[in-house]
Amino acid sequence: MVERIFERLTVIGLGLIGTSVVRAARAAGQVGHIVVTDADPTVRQRVRELDIADVVAETSEAAVQDADAVVLCVPVGESGRVVATVAPHLKQGAILSDVGSVKVAVIEAVLPHLPAQACFVPAHPVAGTEFSGPDAGFAELFQDRWCILTPFERSTEAGTDAMHRLWEGFGARVERMEPRHHDMVLAITSHVPHLIAYNIVGTAAHLEEVTQTEVMKFSAGGFRDFTRIAASDPTMWRDVFLNNKDAVLEMLGRFTEDLSALQRMVRYGDGDGLFELFTRTRAIRKGIIAQGQETAAVDFGRRVGPEVSKKDV
Amino acid sequence: MVERIFERLTVIGLGLIGTSVVRAARAAGQVGHIVVTDADPTVRQRVRELDIADVVAETSEAAVQDADAVVLCVPVGESGRVVATVAPHLKQGAILSDVGSVKVAVIEAVLPHLPAQACFVPAHPVAGTEFSGPDAGFAELFQDRWCILTPFERSTEAGTDAMHRLWEGFGARVERMEPRHHDMVLAITSHVPHLIAYNIVGTAAHLEEVTQTEVMKFSAGGFRDFTRIAASDPTMWRDVFLNNKDAVLEMLGRFTEDLSALQRMVRYGDGDGLFELFTRTRAIRKGIIAQGQETAAVDFGRRVGPEVSKKDV
Repeated sequence: MVERIFERLTVIGLGLIGTSVVRAARAAGQVGHIVVTDADPTVRQRVRELDIADVVAETSEAAVQDADAVVLCVPVGESGRVVATVAPHLKQGAILSDVGSVKVAVIEAVLPHLPAQACFVPAHPVAGTEFSGPDAGFAELFQDRWCILTPFERSTEAGTDAMHRLWEGFGARVERMEPRHHDMVLAITSHVPHLIAYNIVGTAAHLEEVTQTEVMKFSAGGFRDFTRIAASDPTMWRDVFLNNKDAVLEMLGRFTEDLSALQRMVRYGDGDGLFELFTRTRAIRKGIIAQGQETAAVDFGRRVGPEVSKKDV
Repeated sequence: MVERIFERLTVIGLGLIGTSVVRAARAAGQVGHIVVTDADPTVRQRVRELDIADVVAETSEAAVQDADAVVLCVPVGESGRVVATVAPHLKQGAILSDVGSVKVAVIEAVLPHLPAQACFVPAHPVAGTEFSGPDAGFAELFQDRWCILTPFERSTEAGTDAMHRLWEGFGARVERMEPRHHDMVLAITSHVPHLIAYNIVGTAAHLEEVTQTEVMKFSAGGFRDFTRIAASDPTMWRDVFLNNKDAVLEMLGRFTEDLSALQRMVRYGDGDGLFELFTRTRAIRKGIIAQGQETAAVDFGRRVGPEVSKKDV
């Protein structure tokens, strides 16, 4: 017996995450009626064709009418503007939530527009792929991934609990965290890795000594792993860096300090230092696989390979 | 009808690459008799149990007796020492080759020990996984991957052709390149990506504000992709950095220059600059997928996902 959490759910923004929320909510059967919208008319049309929601509204004002919960799935830089638009149309007691990769800046942007009675439960599902748009979404995206809720003084306990159960219904594991701590954790586990990946792919595209064709042909030596995350949605990621500047710069500072030390090891031929670091980093991957956040399949299962024995992971 | 390229092939060093060469050679049926050895007695024992070679010799001197071709599959720092050991025992006309990720330093290390008549064909199959040891190898590892040959004045045309055909028989595509150019290409497509991955995984392991458990739990946001290559064999990679220092430092210099510019964009909130870079980097991935060096499957096929339409890749 599935618990009905919301009679009427509205999702604003129909990209990878937004349409995955819609698909997961329908698959889980936790909501009665799903109303969606997107600022882009071609996206709205595509979502009508995909037939994943009950109603595709023309405007966000119309979409939020009578909604018990509204989930913003727009780039984080849009959050304040969207809430300013929909606020006068929110039902009394409606729960507002989001899926942004940044939490402090979203709270700051939303707060001035939040109606007096409204509950806002900031949320961030740590899941995604390198693809964007409504066709990229799928119901299983959040399965076994973490969703972080960052309740603050404007989040009611009932609203936070409802979002908690909604995300659990999507197959996610839910954790609660301080907004500021969230931004620091994600800076190192997601934002800086993306920045570095974008950077090396950019560097490789601009060399005189090595052609782009060579970069592509011989990418299996490591480079191609970086290109996956450097193919992520540009608008979303621009907004992440603009809105989590302090934590990103702080973590990037640590990274570059460590890189200078590593560069010195290479320059001075410090084999013991290199070996020690390269041994230590193996342990982290074992932990990630043990946490169920990664596959132990050889090469991400890209190719046919041997069974992986316990001792190897 | 398979072409018999060598009557007797010797492989020295029985890790991921060495045992994959052995398995591929047997699967392809291009060699008559396969003799192997490894400096580590437990590895030799394991390879006997795996029963992938005709003879597991106790020493490299014994292993190379009567061999038509000898392929070194040892960490690049060992190349000179191994050749010094086996040189007096090489058959007249034997072809020597290797699989090292670095070519100039290997040639320099091997050259002083190379017998007057011997032919040395440096080779580098651009393939691998994050696993090490004799159990990690598999015959299909080189399928559709590139193998770069870097013939130089001590490589005969006949020897180079034989190695070319051997690697093609393993399913690889073969390219010939200047040794120095190889080292520059691989510095950007493989060595610097590994260095950066090792570095960020190391940085993440040493934060006070963020626990290791948090790093592991929330790694699906991007970080985990880096951990795969930061789990690669520490000995092999230490030797790569010690032996391709100049090219690695050169490419790392470009990377850090670009990173400083990117850091400034974040600091100054240059959204247009960020968006422009993030859009540009998408094209490189499309090229890699078009080159057949990567899968277009969502998330490396880690999870169940939608079909990927042509327009998305």
